[in-house]
Amino acid sequence: MRSSTPKPLHRLAGRPMVAHLIDACAEAGFGRAVVVAGPEPAFAPMRAVVAPHPCVVQHDRLGTAHATLAAAEALAATRGEAMVLYGDVPLVRPATMRALAARRRETGAGLALLAFRPADPAQYGRVILGEDGFVTRIVEWRDADAAERAVGLCNAGLFCAPAADLLRWLRQVGNANAKGEYYLTDIVAIARAEGARVTPAEAPAEEVLGINSRAELAAAEAVVQRRLRAAAMDAGATLVAPETVFLSWDTRLGADVTVHPNVVFGPGVTVEDGAEIRAFSHLEACRVGPGATIGPFARLRPGAEIGAGAHVGNFVELKNATLGEGAKANHLAYLGDATIGAGANIGAGTITCNYDGVAKHRTTIGDGVFVGSNATLVAPVRLGDGSFIAAGSTITADVAPDAMAFGRARQTDKPNRASAFRARCKEKG
Amino acid sequence: MRSSTPKPLHRLAGRPMVAHLIDACAEAGFGRAVVVAGPEPAFAPMRAVVAPHPCVVQHDRLGTAHATLAAAEALAATRGEAMVLYGDVPLVRPATMRALAARRRETGAGLALLAFRPADPAQYGRVILGEDGFVTRIVEWRDADAAERAVGLCNAGLFCAPAADLLRWLRQVGNANAKGEYYLTDIVAIARAEGARVTPAEAPAEEVLGINSRAELAAAEAVVQRRLRAAAMDAGATLVAPETVFLSWDTRLGADVTVHPNVVFGPGVTVEDGAEIRAFSHLEACRVGPGATIGPFARLRPGAEIGAGAHVGNFVELKNATLGEGAKANHLAYLGDATIGAGANIGAGTITCNYDGVAKHRTTIGDGVFVGSNATLVAPVRLGDGSFIAAGSTITADVAPDAMAFGRARQTDKPNRASAFRARCKEKG
Amino acid sequence: MRSSTPKPLHRLAGRPMVAHLIDACAEAGFGRAVVVAGPEPAFAPMRAVVAPHPCVVQHDRLGTAHATLAAAEALAATRGEAMVLYGDVPLVRPATMRALAARRRETGAGLALLAFRPADPAQYGRVILGEDGFVTRIVEWRDADAAERAVGLCNAGLFCAPAADLLRWLRQVGNANAKGEYYLTDIVAIARAEGARVTPAEAPAEEVLGINSRAELAAAEAVVQRRLRAAAMDAGATLVAPETVFLSWDTRLGADVTVHPNVVFGPGVTVEDGAEIRAFSHLEACRVGPGATIGPFARLRPGAEIGAGAHVGNFVELKNATLGEGAKANHLAYLGDATIGAGANIGAGTITCNYDGVAKHRTTIGDGVFVGSNATLVAPVRLGDGSFIAAGSTITADVAPDAMAFGRARQTDKPNRASAFRARCKEKG
Repeated sequence: MRSSTPKPLHRLAGRPMVAHLIDACAEAGFGRAVVVAGPEPAFAPMRAVVAPHPCVVQHDRLGTAHATLAAAEALAATRGEAMVLYGDVPLVRPATMRALAARRRETGAGLALLAFRPADPAQYGRVILGEDGFVTRIVEWRDADAAERAVGLCNAGLFCAPAADLLRWLRQVGNANAKGEYYLTDIVAIARAEGARVTPAEAPAEEVLGINSRAELAAAEAVVQRRLRAAAMDAGATLVAPETVFLSWDTRLGADVTVHPNVVFGPGVTVEDGAEIRAFSHLEACRVGPGATIGPFARLRPGAEIGAGAHVGNFVELKNATLGEGAKANHLAYLGDATIGAGANIGAGTITCNYDGVAKHRTTIGDGVFVGSNATLVAPVRLGDGSFIAAGSTITADVAPDAMAFGRARQTDKPNRASAFRARCKEKG
Repeated sequence: MRSSTPKPLHRLAGRPMVAHLIDACAEAGFGRAVVVAGPEPAFAPMRAVVAPHPCVVQHDRLGTAHATLAAAEALAATRGEAMVLYGDVPLVRPATMRALAARRRETGAGLALLAFRPADPAQYGRVILGEDGFVTRIVEWRDADAAERAVGLCNAGLFCAPAADLLRWLRQVGNANAKGEYYLTDIVAIARAEGARVTPAEAPAEEVLGINSRAELAAAEAVVQRRLRAAAMDAGATLVAPETVFLSWDTRLGADVTVHPNVVFGPGVTVEDGAEIRAFSHLEACRVGPGATIGPFARLRPGAEIGAGAHVGNFVELKNATLGEGAKANHLAYLGDATIGAGANIGAGTITCNYDGVAKHRTTIGDGVFVGSNATLVAPVRLGDGSFIAAGSTITADVAPDAMAFGRARQTDKPNRASAFRARCKEKG
Repeated sequence: MRSSTPKPLHRLAGRPMVAHLIDACAEAGFGRAVVVAGPEPAFAPMRAVVAPHPCVVQHDRLGTAHATLAAAEALAATRGEAMVLYGDVPLVRPATMRALAARRRETGAGLALLAFRPADPAQYGRVILGEDGFVTRIVEWRDADAAERAVGLCNAGLFCAPAADLLRWLRQVGNANAKGEYYLTDIVAIARAEGARVTPAEAPAEEVLGINSRAELAAAEAVVQRRLRAAAMDAGATLVAPETVFLSWDTRLGADVTVHPNVVFGPGVTVEDGAEIRAFSHLEACRVGPGATIGPFARLRPGAEIGAGAHVGNFVELKNATLGEGAKANHLAYLGDATIGAGANIGAGTITCNYDGVAKHRTTIGDGVFVGSNATLVAPVRLGDGSFIAAGSTITADVAPDAMAFGRARQTDKPNRASAFRARCKEKG
């Protein structure tokens, strides 16, 4: 990856890939997860990402079986089944996890492994089946003969077994091989030597895509986006050009919501029924009320709350701001740390000056207020209900309800001076 | 669809899908159309969409033949041929419609039906042909035997026949079936029973895609966009990345127009020869003159008229506004209800205050006017030719030609006070 | 193409396609290039595009051999090998060029030609091989018999041979054919008649795509973009949605740079390690320092230099401007011809008025300056280190270090007047 960030902490649809996997486990019915992390400082954020699930550290990198044994304590404390997954194979669906577990129980096998049929099997380990359909062995590509290489079924490396059995097998894995590593795959032979049967369960190749480069990361992102878009459309949203809409893992779109081309949703966004998100909009950690219209070219930052039927137009940014029902901020505005009442009209070029260089302050705009264009509202400031702010004003003090406030200079003209001024500029230039 | 909008009124390339179909009929040479609509209030907008073509209501939903009979009066009044299409199968091309009609005439058949070969025939009805190449019957998937299911030719459900014959056959369709419905497909057997031959005409599967979900709606949009982009490039426009340009059904791009990535065209846009539309621009119901440059990040709303060689730059919005030949509005501006003369220069941050909370007013800017940055122009207002508006001014009264106008406060400085102010803010914070 | 611009001057990834080809030649080890151009005035820009390589003019269009002979002087002066390429076949990779030359030498052939296997061979000329694997002849589709048409190997028209041989063969090409043209392909037969062997070298079909329409131009752009994106990801940048990122031929992205969806890079951009380019950003001829954050909705124009860890937020444009280390310009600003110090904070709506209608002037903002929102800075102007500009101010004179500057009117309120004003507006409206 050429990255200082560990692979499982790279993001898909707005959150670390390992978090996708943990959620899928929970949805599949696995009650707890234990995450094995590397010892490097770069893994430090992992603990917070996977909480409340615990994180254990593999101090030396001695192979996949050795890594799994870092979770030995948890395995020993588990009565039911355990599943081994990889932080850099994040696309396994809950249904596939459930199918893997069910397959083991239904076939009476001791161990189930996930297999797949890649378009190009290349150098994957091949899954060799006996006549009874159970696995006889996994053969690595370099050890395989021509007949074995012709097998299309490959080993994805994911296993499911009763936790106690898994732990026992893991402890028998040796490292008498070229690299001196403990390989998880060896549990297949160990289980079979105990008399246990090993069953394959097949998964779509897309789900067991491992991520080892930025290109594979992008390919995985594409898979996740395709799933999220399909789910949003199934739930009743229109995505005019779904391939141009980027969703987060937790984006919620109501019924008859329309999303136009080129919209990006960061984490934490809810859009209620019938709202319209126009092209080139960017939303993060915000809520859009029913029937509201956003964009084009709108930016909703964390804490933006848009009321029912409200309008946010082009080149408008809201941050930690509430826009009341039916209120409008249609053009070129920055509304930060603000509360804006129902039916208010925010003119083009309006800026809430929420920051004095040291602290943030709040702007409160009442119901039905008219804020003229290019107004500068110096917070903390409060505009009473129904008040009117003249265009071009800088407002530094509270305005009473129904008052008109002016904070601009009078116009003065100098007749017949423009051409003289231009001539002077030319001389100087 | 999980939608409160009837399927034929969902939009493709900016207009209801049924409108696409009606235009295609006209282009194929069918002189009139009759649209059968459901009785629900949600169908009310249909009448305006299809006008001047009439809309008839099918009060009970008793099947496709019953629906077609809602247009019985029109069929009875028609001397020539009639074609039956579906409001949710909107991608049939005029050439395909003409081919369907021609095929009937050329083969001497009484009835022609549109057939297609889907990648996965699934549960479509199969078109069974005799040795003479004419249709012997349509067999529904559930009634088909293995040999019939192996047939790849499927029934798209579209028919063409002389109107009088069609009407007679429709009236013979019965409802003695499991659902008690009147099926249009039954006219195949009825026509044959009369001795008429039934010919198939094959269409690309893409054209007879029916739209039953948001995902299929998005797929149809993709087909329409592909057609529109190809036509625009054929006509001599460069689309740098065509898959990122969204066109409307009526977008007109001149020769040697260049459209950069990520541009959205709403309905009603004309771009004249040699103009350049840069990335992240959004245009609706506007006209861009020859050689003009728009964007990146420009928004042209309805009524924007951009003169030859004029420039509209980033974060600039025009609405109901004319920008004269060679004029420039390069940065961060809102120009609404405005007339701007040739060669004028509109500074960054300029806002036309066209709305006083009640009504809209007009701003008129003469030829060669220089509007300084962050100017606030309170309409109605008129800036004479060659006048000069100082930066930061609020202008509330007309400015004479060649005058310089100021509407800003004088600067006053408080030496050595910034650090003290910061300290005070910190104490308060 | 329906274009007034000659094909080789149409752009791919931000520069004329012929320039791509010239660079590939150099990378392949060919020390000099000679470009043959048409005689029309539209070819005039060619000379600058290909400099320092010379451009020769083919005055009459008498075929490809005739065009190549326009470079006869250069061929006569060349001791080593020469390669014939086409300005409208710009995607040939250096490795393919090298392989073409190497193939000739390794096989002892006198002439090497580039061949390819298109998905649909259509009417391309077929390359007919003898049993020894050498070319026996090129047969045009219209002259080919059924067996020859079944051959999948087609002639791309690119040749490599010692320059002296090439020149001699070119001079023997005649024009005794239907169109009376001199065809380059004829050198195959001429070389063979001399006893030279002719070897094919195969290239991926994608590389020899000829560009004859806007659609093919767009397809070639897609190929170039795919290559550039893959190279950027290999080098350690994360492209969240690579298919939405448009790169220029010279874009440089450092390690652990993240590029979000929908970003457009014009020519001349360098992004240093760890910087983040958020969605909907547009960059040209600028430099982004390590760890800086750009966008969403940011526009960096030529000459923008962003310091380490600095922030450029939404609807902000920089042109010919330096933003110091850790400085912030987060919202709605135009910063042109400006130098901004480290740690400065530029408020929302700030505009540098760099243009007086005649010339451009510079704004200099010191370290740690706080520029309040909606400030209008009339250049030339200098804000001293640590100074503070009040929100809404127009600043026309230099501000001393640590001074506070105000340039705005005092606020005045008119109690209980807003509703009366509205009533009056309604009467007038």
